[in-house]
Amino acid sequence: MSKEAIVVGAGLVGSLWAVFLARRGYQVKVFERRPDMRAVGYRGGKSINLAMSERGWKAVEKAGIREEIEKVAIPMPGRMIHNADGQLSFQAYGKEGEAIYSVSRGGLNMELLHIASGFPNVEFFFDYQCLGADLDAPKITFENTKTGQIETFESPLIFATDGAFSAVRYSLQKTDRFNYRQYYLDHGYKELTIPPTADGKHRMDPGALHIWPRGNFMLIALPNADGSFTCTLFLPFEGPVSYESIRNDADILAFFEKHFPDAVAFIPDLIHDFNHNPTSSLVTVNCKPWQWQGRILLLGDAAHAIVPFYGQGMNAGFEDCTILDGMLDEHGEDWARVIPAFAARRVQDGNAIAELAQRNFIEMRDLVADPMFLLRKKIAADLHAKFPGEFLPVYSMVTFSNTPYHIALREDDAQNQLFKDILNVPDVSENWNSPAVEAVFKNWLKQRNG
Amino acid sequence: MSKEAIVVGAGLVGSLWAVFLARRGYQVKVFERRPDMRAVGYRGGKSINLAMSERGWKAVEKAGIREEIEKVAIPMPGRMIHNADGQLSFQAYGKEGEAIYSVSRGGLNMELLHIASGFPNVEFFFDYQCLGADLDAPKITFENTKTGQIETFESPLIFATDGAFSAVRYSLQKTDRFNYRQYYLDHGYKELTIPPTADGKHRMDPGALHIWPRGNFMLIALPNADGSFTCTLFLPFEGPVSYESIRNDADILAFFEKHFPDAVAFIPDLIHDFNHNPTSSLVTVNCKPWQWQGRILLLGDAAHAIVPFYGQGMNAGFEDCTILDGMLDEHGEDWARVIPAFAARRVQDGNAIAELAQRNFIEMRDLVADPMFLLRKKIAADLHAKFPGEFLPVYSMVTFSNTPYHIALREDDAQNQLFKDILNVPDVSENWNSPAVEAVFKNWLKQRNG
Repeated sequence: MSKEAIVVGAGLVGSLWAVFLARRGYQVKVFERRPDMRAVGYRGGKSINLAMSERGWKAVEKAGIREEIEKVAIPMPGRMIHNADGQLSFQAYGKEGEAIYSVSRGGLNMELLHIASGFPNVEFFFDYQCLGADLDAPKITFENTKTGQIETFESPLIFATDGAFSAVRYSLQKTDRFNYRQYYLDHGYKELTIPPTADGKHRMDPGALHIWPRGNFMLIALPNADGSFTCTLFLPFEGPVSYESIRNDADILAFFEKHFPDAVAFIPDLIHDFNHNPTSSLVTVNCKPWQWQGRILLLGDAAHAIVPFYGQGMNAGFEDCTILDGMLDEHGEDWARVIPAFAARRVQDGNAIAELAQRNFIEMRDLVADPMFLLRKKIAADLHAKFPGEFLPVYSMVTFSNTPYHIALREDDAQNQLFKDILNVPDVSENWNSPAVEAVFKNWLKQRNG
Repeated sequence: MSKEAIVVGAGLVGSLWAVFLARRGYQVKVFERRPDMRAVGYRGGKSINLAMSERGWKAVEKAGIREEIEKVAIPMPGRMIHNADGQLSFQAYGKEGEAIYSVSRGGLNMELLHIASGFPNVEFFFDYQCLGADLDAPKITFENTKTGQIETFESPLIFATDGAFSAVRYSLQKTDRFNYRQYYLDHGYKELTIPPTADGKHRMDPGALHIWPRGNFMLIALPNADGSFTCTLFLPFEGPVSYESIRNDADILAFFEKHFPDAVAFIPDLIHDFNHNPTSSLVTVNCKPWQWQGRILLLGDAAHAIVPFYGQGMNAGFEDCTILDGMLDEHGEDWARVIPAFAARRVQDGNAIAELAQRNFIEMRDLVADPMFLLRKKIAADLHAKFPGEFLPVYSMVTFSNTPYHIALREDDAQNQLFKDILNVPDVSENWNSPAVEAVFKNWLKQRNG
């Protein structure tokens, strides 16, 4: 088989996977619907900042490009909760030294394009919109949106990294026994900006992911390298407090002053941005199988689009690359065998992180301000300190380890049961590190090991 | 608004809905991908017989065509279980006088086409394959598969009855916030035929739906008017006992002789039919919303394709017609209001019957041969006889009433809880109609009413 491959989509995962293929000596053609963002600039306003964590770092390290990425990443060791009463409280994400890293989607994507373009065996085709695949050939058809021409390309290997609305996946969807689900939250998101101070400083602590949890809705803010913060409002589309219920400029201001008074002062263009930035929807996509006859493979959002509440969308896509590349290391480039094996093994992880991300929405918007939730976090940290080999909080497992997501999901179910029992211990608020709590924990441990 | 409508798909629901529209005085254009089955014959071999029940009858009655349909229907008042040991046992579906009715899909579809064609304001276009919809216009594009020409039609109202793989629904799927799921069972089905005796008689009791439940797989048989039975084998695609594991003629015979010895003798063309009839997959489709801007509406399988194990696929589609027509009776032909209201109200019923149909697969293939399940059925019948106002078995609610499916699903959950408690009564096999059982029932009743 000639060492050729097509990658559909030059987003984060497509650009990174092109680097992996290039390093293996493949002639890679990468097709991208949008223009080259390095020439026209990244079109933001619709994209949440990214939180890079262990799985993402592992992938860029394996691709040999960790150093370049580190330059644009800002560590966030914890959450800063902005309570309704104006109080701030900081919750560390993990242990001392552990952090997630804020990176700009556009900045990271441009860096990856730059790195991939540095390989002589990678060729980019921008303004090529994928119209679908002839699966059995396999070949793939594009419209060159600049010329209007339809062009078809063949390749022994096609990797679809064309995102949540993957055109390649639509072709797969019409094959027999293809399971598929697209599910939208009732919430939409909108980006707003906190600009830097006049002397280029951050207006809030840049060492945290800021959250204003308000029950059924929330605001978050992630620091950028230029001193600004990108804020994202998550709010139901319809209902008593919703995008629909905010009808004019006075409503916008009243809503923010009521719920996010300490943020209002920092968002000078609030009214303009609210009116002009789009309200975007939040989709989860699950499907199976991710591949066709060992020659076409979905990766990243095309295979498993998830909601952003665990900060794992990009990390999960990057981990796809690490795992697939690792299987090639192990079995050789026997694609007809490796692609189906990868798809069969990895699909449960895609489903698991989709479920965990939906669960984390509840946690972020609601529970982080709940005293019982804070108590649970405190007990979890204590158990982890006392029994580091037996107990790792699920957030740490997802964010600071490379444990397969499906194991983290199973752990989440188990720990939810554990804390249901622990929080039933009499006067647990006072007795949170008592022998009674420890007894519940040991019993739980015995049952699951037994 | 001019009284015009397009119906996409001349299957069972499309033909019936064309009749409803015709009776309201609409100029109806009905487009169908296949040739006119009245001219070329119905292409069977891939289609399960239908079991018509109350919801189906109500719809054809409202359409004014009940008498014509009754002529081709065979009553089946119960199930005939063919146990592994060769024993037969009969389980009535409902009360004395209640039955489901076996009808041939092809025969019923032709009858409906015939009736619809009798209206001067209904026009059929066969060999027109839908390519998709321009939703906002709205207009809809077809390929005339005989001429290869592409033709586009506009209409103020478009009804998509184009089945589980609806082309109109694919257009809707790409709109923002459209929830969609297609889910395949691991089982496939294959049709086989038990021909009539030489003198045109049925070889088994025609007054029953015959089932050979064998745990993870099963065979069923429904009587036809010509003395034959249509058999359907439901078997996993892959695994130790599966289509994949049956590799040659000897395997076919060995499989049937081991598991369905009393059926083998009745299926003379077993080897030929098994080898030549397709193995088809079983899909469930859920989506939301079913409509677009009050002008395009999905009905029947296009909105809610379900597995056949409750015998409700056609009945659910026909009930769509009854309910929609009833809303027009009530509110007038204010489509912009009625279509969204219908879609919002009916989607929960589509989801509920999809879930119930999947649950009934477990029941049919597995539980009907389980002594505890038979005991449960006996107690349920007894409770219904003693407390007809308080207790109706879910099967009866689905099959012999017009209670909304979502209420039947809720009842199924509640009754599952009830029987979990009842089957825990000591020595319940002997005490099945004891005061102890009645006490559990009354307590359950009190809790749900309180």
